[in-house]
Amino acid sequence: MMRLVHHHGIEQVLRDLTDEIEADYRRWDLFEKAPRLASHSNDGVIELMPTSDGEVFSFKYVNGHPSNTAKGFQTVAAFGLLARVDTGYPLMLSEMTLLTALRTAATSAMVARHLAPKEARTMAMIGNGAQAEFQALAMKAVIGVREVRLYDIDPAATRKAAANLRGRGLTVVSCESAQTAIEGAQIITTCTADKAYATILTDNMVGAGIHINAIGGDCPGKTELHRDILGRAATFVEFEPQTRIEGEIQQMPADYPVTEFWRVLRGEAPGRTDARQITLFDSVGFAIEDFSALRYIHGKLHGSDFFHQLDMLADPDDPRDLFGMLQRAA
Amino acid sequence: MMRLVHHHGIEQVLRDLTDEIEADYRRWDLFEKAPRLASHSNDGVIELMPTSDGEVFSFKYVNGHPSNTAKGFQTVAAFGLLARVDTGYPLMLSEMTLLTALRTAATSAMVARHLAPKEARTMAMIGNGAQAEFQALAMKAVIGVREVRLYDIDPAATRKAAANLRGRGLTVVSCESAQTAIEGAQIITTCTADKAYATILTDNMVGAGIHINAIGGDCPGKTELHRDILGRAATFVEFEPQTRIEGEIQQMPADYPVTEFWRVLRGEAPGRTDARQITLFDSVGFAIEDFSALRYIHGKLHGSDFFHQLDMLADPDDPRDLFGMLQRAA
Repeated sequence: MMRLVHHHGIEQVLRDLTDEIEADYRRWDLFEKAPRLASHSNDGVIELMPTSDGEVFSFKYVNGHPSNTAKGFQTVAAFGLLARVDTGYPLMLSEMTLLTALRTAATSAMVARHLAPKEARTMAMIGNGAQAEFQALAMKAVIGVREVRLYDIDPAATRKAAANLRGRGLTVVSCESAQTAIEGAQIITTCTADKAYATILTDNMVGAGIHINAIGGDCPGKTELHRDILGRAATFVEFEPQTRIEGEIQQMPADYPVTEFWRVLRGEAPGRTDARQITLFDSVGFAIEDFSALRYIHGKLHGSDFFHQLDMLADPDDPRDLFGMLQRAA
Repeated sequence: MMRLVHHHGIEQVLRDLTDEIEADYRRWDLFEKAPRLASHSNDGVIELMPTSDGEVFSFKYVNGHPSNTAKGFQTVAAFGLLARVDTGYPLMLSEMTLLTALRTAATSAMVARHLAPKEARTMAMIGNGAQAEFQALAMKAVIGVREVRLYDIDPAATRKAAANLRGRGLTVVSCESAQTAIEGAQIITTCTADKAYATILTDNMVGAGIHINAIGGDCPGKTELHRDILGRAATFVEFEPQTRIEGEIQQMPADYPVTEFWRVLRGEAPGRTDARQITLFDSVGFAIEDFSALRYIHGKLHGSDFFHQLDMLADPDDPRDLFGMLQRAA
C-alpha cells in the first residue's frame, strides 16, 4: 500500500479517492446498506463493515482501541476484502489501516467541497493523531486549504504533525489551545481518540459560517462536540441509522433533523443555504467509502508488483470432490 | 490446512473438533451471538459470521452459490479470522473451505452423540456433494457408525463419495433412491445444495426412532424436509433467532417449539426422551463452531510450518505517526 501511494503521489491518491467516493455516493441507492456489526469490549470495539453494489461485495475489519497507543499498537488497524457477487469468490485482501486514513480524509474533503464556505483556506485541526496529516493534505489537494492550525492536548502529537506537514505547501501553525487553533479558520476538524463523552468544542467557540468536520465521535459513548453546537448547526451524515448510534447526534433526540449527504450530491436536499450557517459533517465512516477505496486500489494493481497471490481458496478439480482433493494431498 | 489435517489424521481432527465445539457449546452464555450478516443476490449469498468469548474474536467469510459448481468453483468457499479482543489485532487468517466441512461434520457428530439412538450404526447420506465424506467419517469417528448408505440425484456424486470412502473401515452402499438409502438407517443426513424449497424427505419415509441430521436447509428459501416431518419431530437448533430465518423451521409458525442444543448439553433441557421419538437437528451452521475450529487450528500452529507470516498491519514506530511511516517509506 505504501509503495502504491508513493507511486501515484499521495495528493493525487487523495483527489482520486475523493472522486471515487463521490461517484459511489451518487449511486447510493444501488448499495446494500446496514449499520456496521460491532463487538464491544472494555478495551475497544471490533467492527465488520460490509456493503455491495450488486456486482462487487466488500467488507472491512476494523478495530478501535484507544488504549492501544500506550501498548505500541495502532488505535485503529484494519484490513478489507473485495469479492465478486456472482460467485462469492474473493478478489483482493488488502491492508486498510493506511487506506482507512486516506479514505476518511477523502470523505471529509468530498463533503467540505460541497458544504464548506467557498473561500475556505484555513482549517483548524483539533486532535493531531494518526489521521491529522491525511486530513490536512486532502483539504489542500481537494479544496485548496492553505493554512492548517494544529492543536492537541499532547504537544508531542502537534510537533509530530507539524514536522510531517513541513515542505508540503501548507502554512502550518502550532497552537497551544483549541481556542487559538480555531482563530480565522473556516473549517474546524475534530479528530480525537478518547472513548468518552468529551467536549472538544464548546458552543461559544463556533462562529457563524463555519464548517465543522467532526471525525472522532464515531462510536456509542464517544462524542466531541457540545450538544448546543448541534442545536445551531445544519447536520449532514453518511447513513442515518448508523450515525444515530455512533455519531455526535447520539446526544440528541431521535427526531433531531439530519440530512444524508448523498441527497445533497443528487440535488434532492439543500446543502449550505447561507454564508452564516454552521454546517456540520457528523462523520462516523461508512462501508461505501471502504468499498470505493478498495475498488480504487484493486484497479491500480493490474500490471504492478504491489500485490502477491494468496493461496486461500480450496481448488479441487471437481468442486464436489473436496474430500478427494484432501485425500490426494496426503 | 491439508498438511495440518494429514499430520494429525482426519479422524483424530474430527474427534478433536467435536470435543472443542462441545466444550464451547457448554460455555454458550459467554459468547456474543448475533444472526449472521447475509448479503443475498440472485446467484447466492455472502455471509459474515462473527462471535467472541470476550477474549478472542472470530469471524468467517463464507459464500453459498449453488450455481458455482457448473462454473468449476466451490458452492461454498470460506476463510476466517481470529483476533485478540484486548487489542483488536488479528492473530490468524485461515482458509475455511476445508475447515468448514470439517467443523460442520464435527457439529453433526456432537449432536448425534447426544440425540441419536444409542445403537445407531447405519447412516443414510442423502446428497453426496462436498460435505458427504466428512459427515460419514465424523459419524464413524465420534459415534461408531459402521455403514453409510449413499444417495444423490446425480449418480456421479454417489460414485465419487463411494470411491473416496473406500478403505476407511466403513461399509458403503450406493443406492438408487432416497427410499432405498434410508432402509435400516438410524440416522438420516440430508445435505443437498439446491437453493429452493425442496422435499428431500417426505413424511412417510421417516420412521420412529430416527435421528435426522438436516444440513442442507440453511438459508431463506432453502429447505429439504416436508413440513409434516417437523410436525412429528423434536427439533433441536444451534441459535434459535438464526435458525428461524435460515433453517427447516422457516416453514413453520414462529411459535413452533425448538430447543437450543447447548441447553441439552448443560442439562437444562431434555434431549431424546423416548426410543421411538424422531429427533431432528435443524443445522444451519453457527459462528461458535467456526470460533472453536479456528482456535483449534491456531493451537496446532506453534512450532509447525503450516503457516506463514502476513504483512497486513501497519506498524509505525509511533502509533500516532502513521503518516511519518508512509513518508519514510518513500
